[in-house]
Order: sequence, then C-alpha cells, then structure tokens
Amino acid sequence: MTEGRPLSLGDGVTATLARFLVASRWEDVPAAVRHEARRTLLNSLGAALGGCRDAAVEHALAVLRSFAGQPEATLIGRAQRTDALTAAFVNAASANVLDFDDTHLPTVIHPAAPVIPAVLAIAERTKLTGAQLLHAAILGIEVECRIGNAVSPWHYARGWHITSTCGVIGAAVAVAKLLNLDAERTIWALGVAANQSCGLVETLGSMAKSVSVGNAARNGIVAALFAQQGVTAAPQTLEGARGFVHVMGDKPDLSAIDAALGTSWESARNTYKPYPCGIVLHPMIDALLELRATHALRAGVVDRVIVRGNPLLRQRTDRPAPRTGREASVSAQHTAAVCLLYGAAGVAQYRDECVADPAVQALGARVAVEDDPAIPVGAAAVSVRTADGRMLTHSVAHALGSLERPMSDAVIETKVRDLASVGAPDCDVDRLIDAVWTVDQHDDAALVARLAAART
Amino acid sequence: MTEGRPLSLGDGVTATLARFLVASRWEDVPAAVRHEARRTLLNSLGAALGGCRDAAVEHALAVLRSFAGQPEATLIGRAQRTDALTAAFVNAASANVLDFDDTHLPTVIHPAAPVIPAVLAIAERTKLTGAQLLHAAILGIEVECRIGNAVSPWHYARGWHITSTCGVIGAAVAVAKLLNLDAERTIWALGVAANQSCGLVETLGSMAKSVSVGNAARNGIVAALFAQQGVTAAPQTLEGARGFVHVMGDKPDLSAIDAALGTSWESARNTYKPYPCGIVLHPMIDALLELRATHALRAGVVDRVIVRGNPLLRQRTDRPAPRTGREASVSAQHTAAVCLLYGAAGVAQYRDECVADPAVQALGARVAVEDDPAIPVGAAAVSVRTADGRMLTHSVAHALGSLERPMSDAVIETKVRDLASVGAPDCDVDRLIDAVWTVDQHDDAALVARLAAART
Repeated sequence: MTEGRPLSLGDGVTATLARFLVASRWEDVPAAVRHEARRTLLNSLGAALGGCRDAAVEHALAVLRSFAGQPEATLIGRAQRTDALTAAFVNAASANVLDFDDTHLPTVIHPAAPVIPAVLAIAERTKLTGAQLLHAAILGIEVECRIGNAVSPWHYARGWHITSTCGVIGAAVAVAKLLNLDAERTIWALGVAANQSCGLVETLGSMAKSVSVGNAARNGIVAALFAQQGVTAAPQTLEGARGFVHVMGDKPDLSAIDAALGTSWESARNTYKPYPCGIVLHPMIDALLELRATHALRAGVVDRVIVRGNPLLRQRTDRPAPRTGREASVSAQHTAAVCLLYGAAGVAQYRDECVADPAVQALGARVAVEDDPAIPVGAAAVSVRTADGRMLTHSVAHALGSLERPMSDAVIETKVRDLASVGAPDCDVDRLIDAVWTVDQHDDAALVARLAAART
Repeated sequence: MTEGRPLSLGDGVTATLARFLVASRWEDVPAAVRHEARRTLLNSLGAALGGCRDAAVEHALAVLRSFAGQPEATLIGRAQRTDALTAAFVNAASANVLDFDDTHLPTVIHPAAPVIPAVLAIAERTKLTGAQLLHAAILGIEVECRIGNAVSPWHYARGWHITSTCGVIGAAVAVAKLLNLDAERTIWALGVAANQSCGLVETLGSMAKSVSVGNAARNGIVAALFAQQGVTAAPQTLEGARGFVHVMGDKPDLSAIDAALGTSWESARNTYKPYPCGIVLHPMIDALLELRATHALRAGVVDRVIVRGNPLLRQRTDRPAPRTGREASVSAQHTAAVCLLYGAAGVAQYRDECVADPAVQALGARVAVEDDPAIPVGAAAVSVRTADGRMLTHSVAHALGSLERPMSDAVIETKVRDLASVGAPDCDVDRLIDAVWTVDQHDDAALVARLAAART
C-alpha cells in the first residue's frame, strides 16, 4: 500500500482546531496570555532544574543514552547534550518528577511538562525566534487543556494520568505550529498524537509516572514530524466514533475544545505551586503553616490533627504510611506532619530520609482526613487539638498559587532559584530568568534552552 | 526524591505473572508450543519483509533516522542498520502494516508484531541463544494474549487497538525474560509497559496505526530496560483500582491472566493469514474464490453479491467506497470485487492502484453486507446473483488459516517467499527459513535477525 490520497478536512473539532492553529498569529495573542506563558516557561524550567537529578530521571537517561543520536539538544541542568527526542523525554520527566510544576486547575493537568521540552528541543534543531517558541507553547497548552476540559472529570477519575494523555497532543500541536504544518498535516499530527495517548493514575507515587510524561513530550515531537513527513491519520481522531474523546472520555463536552478559540485562553489560567506535592494538599498546608505561626505551635504539643476537605482530598491523599518521598507527596498525613514539625513543605520535606524519620511518622499517625462535601476542592479546614486540651482551627478558602491568590513574578523567581540550587547549582539562573522574561524579543529561541544547561 | 525502597511483591495477578515468568524454563515449554512459536516467528518475518517498503514505514524511518544512535540492529529487509529501539519500532511497523501478520482469534491481537522485533533487537545487543529468544517470545505472546483475554471483548469494542495496547506489555515481558530480571523488576517492567499502553481503533485504515504498533515494540524494550535500571512501578499496575484492566477494561476477567499458567498456552493458539486484509473477511474470501472456481464465474456476469455474516463482519467491513489500500483491507465491498475479478486477494489487490480501478469500484457497488447473528464470527455465507438470473451460494464454516483449518508449514513458507519477493527481493529467504525452523538450536540468536536483512 502506498501514499493515502489527501483526506478532506471535514468540519469536526479536529479540523476546527487545525484551522485555528494554522491561522493563529503571534500578534493575535493578548499581552496577558503572553505574560502568563513566560511565567509558565520560567516555572517549568525551575521545576526541571530542581528535578533533573532525581533517580527516575537518572535511570531513564542512563538507559536512553545508549540509544541516543547526535548531541544536538540541551539536557536541562546538565552540561551533556543528546538528540532532541531523548532531550524532550528527559527534560519533561525532570520538569514533572517533583510534582512541583504548574497546574491547570479544572483538569489537574500539569500543562508545561510535555509541551515546553518539546518546543525547546525543536528550537535547538531549527532556527526559531523566541516569539515563535512562546506562541507555539501557548497553542500547545491551549489545546492540551481544552481537550482535558472536554473529557473531565471522568477521564482522571477513570484512572487516566491526564498530564500524559493530553500532554502528548499539546506537544504535537506546539511542534506542528513550529514546523508550519498546513491544516491537513496538523490533523494528522493531532491523530498520531492521540494514538499515542497513555498514562495510568495507578503509577503515581512510583517512578513509572515519569515515563508517560517523558513520552508525552517525545512522542508529541514524533507525531508532528511524522505528519510533516506524510504519515496520515484519521480525519476525526478526536471526535470520531472510536476517537480519543469517546474512548478516553464519557459523555465528552466537545464544545470545550472549540468554543471561543482565540478569544478565551485556558493557557492564561495556569497556576504554579509553592509546595512540591499534590495540589489538593496546598490549602491544608497554608492552614497548618498559619496555625503554627499564629500559635507558635510545636510538634510536641500536638495530640491530634483533623483535616477536613472535599472528598477529593481524602480520596487522593489519605495515605497514613507512605514509604517513599513520591508516595509522601500525595500523603496528607506526611504533609501535615512536616508542616507542624518543620514549618515547611519544601523539596527537603519530600525526600525519602524525611519520610523515614520516626518523628514525622509518629506525628503523621495523629492526622486524620475527613470528608466535608460542603468544602470546595481548593479549600480546607484544619483543627489541631493540643495535649493541653486546646482546639485550634483555621480554614483556607484559596491556597497560595491558586487563581485567586496567584504567586507573584518575584515569588516564582525565588522558587526557581531555590530549585536550581537543589538540582543544578552550576546553572546561571540569573541569566536564565532574564532570558525568559524577554524570550519573545530574542532572535534565537535556543538561547533559553542553552541557559538551562549546566555550565560544566 | 531518591530510590524507592523494595516493594513487597503481593499476591495479585501482576505478581503471579512475574513469578511465573522468572520461574519459566525452556525445558518446561511443550514441543507443540515451541513449534507454533517457530511458525509465528517465520510468519512475522515474512510479513515484515513484505511490509518493509510501505510508505508508512519509509516515512517513520526517514524521521527516526535523524535521531538514531549506533547501527547495532537489523532493519528487516534493508542493508542499513540502526539502534535497537529504532529497529524495533520500524520492524514492528513493517510486520503489521499490511495486516498480513498473525492473529490470536479470541482477542484479534496480532501477537508477533510487537514482541518479535523487540527480542530480535535485544539479540543483536546481548549474546543470546536461539532457544532463549524463542522462549522469551513465547512468554511475551502468552502474557499479551492473556491480558487481552481479560479485557475482551469490551476493550476492542470501546476503541482500543488491542495489538498495540497489549503488545507493549508482551514486548516488555519478553525482554524482561531476556534480561533475567527478578520478580520485583519484572513487576516494574509490567508496570512501566502498562503505563505506555495506547492505540486507537479510529486510526485503522490510516498510516497512524503503524505508530502505536511500532511504539509497542520499542516501548516494551524501554520498559524492561528501565525496570532493570531501577525505575519502579506500582505493585499492581494491572489489577490495581486504577490499573490497566480497570481503566482499559470493563468487568475484566482477571482469571484469564493467571489461570493454568504454564499448562495452557495461548501462544499455541496463534493463527496466520492467507490474505492481507481484515481477518473477519477471510471466510467470505474462501467462499467467493470457491464459487468463482466451481462455476467459472467471471465478473461480467455478476449482478449482485450478498455477503451474510455475524454482525461483527458488517460493523468492521461494510465500507462501500474505500479510498486507499489501507481502507480497502477492511472493506468487504472491495475485497469481494477483487475475488470475483482476479480470483485473488493478495498484496497486489490491496494497492492504491487496484482500489482506484473503475472495474473494481463498479463491482464493489454491487456488494451488500447483511447481518445474520446465527452465523459465527469465523464463518460466512455468500450469494451471487448472475445477470442471467442464477443464484449461486456457498458457505464457509472455517476459513483457511483458522485454528480448525490451519495453514501448513509449507504454505507459510510459500507466503513468506511471496512477501519477500514483494518487499525485499534481495533477502536470502531460503537461509532465513532454514534458520527459523532450527532457531532454538543456534548458539547465536542474532543470526535470524541478520538473515532478515537485505544483502546489499
């Protein structure tokens, strides 16, 4: 069998998306959307700098290195380079491994991890301006989150790791834009990407999570390059009878994919985390840190901690005895314990050593998670009973880092510097931060990637 | 976060499979299972020789070549070599692209395409005996088909391309055996593989299909090597609450995975296709070829063709106007037309040129597919009304290539020679066939791979 004849574009959402992507111009993107994308880029690079020495990343690189091609692309936080596909895989894994990256709250997608490493890798193979890079990333994140909206909340509840499943499509879309694919080939890129969509929630808490996130970035590039080369796909891989939204969704909302394209921007609704753990834990952390500070609480006086939240909080985080840092990052018990013990929930508090600390375990055993359906997902109420019989309570309606209480640019910079000091102290983080804030003024988009490398 | 501590193995099916795989010895595999595996290997190599110049394969290789590592592994039907991961991808795509490979009938999995290229690629990196290679392939196919049984028929009906979704797990299992992983790391390999499980039925009929099949082989290797390196996975990635069988299945039959392991062999229930098209079409083809021969039927006298079969036949193949060879391979109309016109349904009859032939299209327009729930899936009844008013009918209970009417070893050899003449005329097919029949006597398993290359 030989080349397929051109397929008619049709009028489904796959074709509508493709036409929008081809038509989109940088000049059409509002300033606020552009600035949120710069924040997204910076936060993602910081997360990758912090995560790049994680064991999951080291193991993956050790294996992939022996199959890798020419050293054309940056490995974030390293001096060593590799081929663009391997770099995209490793950098996406680095960006997400600490669970310290960005979050699109309606879907719980971490939008940047699959998309940013894909566009950075292409920028090191192909001459691109910084504006092209940022524009493509915005479009990739936009499509990723819209498709996520269409299949939420069933998709994640079923067990799909939505960052991976929708991320590969976002990465493909972003690279398709960078390659200037026409509408038909953009449809193929969407189709080849959807055909590679995978990732199970069951793997969260293990290193396997990083494999599907890495693949999302890598395989998004593959999808766009294959489409460019002529690999055809079904014309309606998203909305067809056995297409993505029906196979991986239930009663999908197709209008979420194409309504108000170009006027309403999901990519501008991105949020960033002040704490490297499951985002549903963040209002609880704010409440505990506030209680601890206000009452000069110390762990020794804590008799009992009751965390009340939306049932989602208990479902995702009621893990009384996590065994690893990864498991601890989705454990309310561990997280409450470190907040009270150390007044912090940072990278250090999710290391295996901290999880194994008997003091943390003893305090975690005093923490209970209770359902209160009246409490929204982004809120939490905490009660601490002290040994001397006091009952201290505090509620948080919106966590730091939420849309309602966003982290400022300066706070994101501080987070990036902290993360760089953990995973890549040799990186020139000052120049990197400057380059990101001005990325769309650079003639060479690869500058940002190169500055995210280690200098030696 | 650093290395996870060892996970306890548990007693779910994931752990049971892992223990079985670690304990399995070549001596335990019955002779009939071994011989069926040799037939599977030969048929798969033939399919790959026939498919290796398909446009989907050429496009994929053109892209992947520019990222490839050292030339350590054979590309079937080519003199050029590449890295093992790229070779596994390309060879799996080649083996499946013509839809002329093997079929596990209860699931409609094509078992060999993801598994055989994975073990061949490892055989060129690591010194293995032919018996080790065949043993690993048997175990990979066994697990792939058992997991497919557990989620069938819902899984495919939902829209999952089962060859890809279960294939990645089969490939991982086979490579895990070749790497001598212990039970815990085999569990991780299963988990990393399940986390990469993907592929949409919507893409069948387009080149995108080959991407998920290629990935199944490639990512199965990645899963096993990652596990060997220390990448952890959840202990119950198959049967956990948000594990594979629940996310990608509905009311899964877990007993299908671990019942009678080592005594009942799904891998011995493999079948091979005499025709390069959807297997549900095969009884119809047998019936039409028989009618044509018996009555010296020629296309000019055919007024109307009625094909009656199980509703599955209509659902999958009622495609009145296919546009490409790929679409034609799942079209009852096209297939019936070529049987009556040419007395054949071979590779030549599924080329785009044949699909575009007005004579084929005109005859195809006279073909109707009707449901008869009383007819089993493997059977069909055909009626041909002639211009002079005769009504000729023929029924086929079991198609050639079914378990009930298997292709003989000699017929498989003939098929392999034919396919090699199409896609790789320079290959030394005689030596290859000899090497496959004696594969488990060879000290060096890589011999089979090397003989599947083109000589120049």
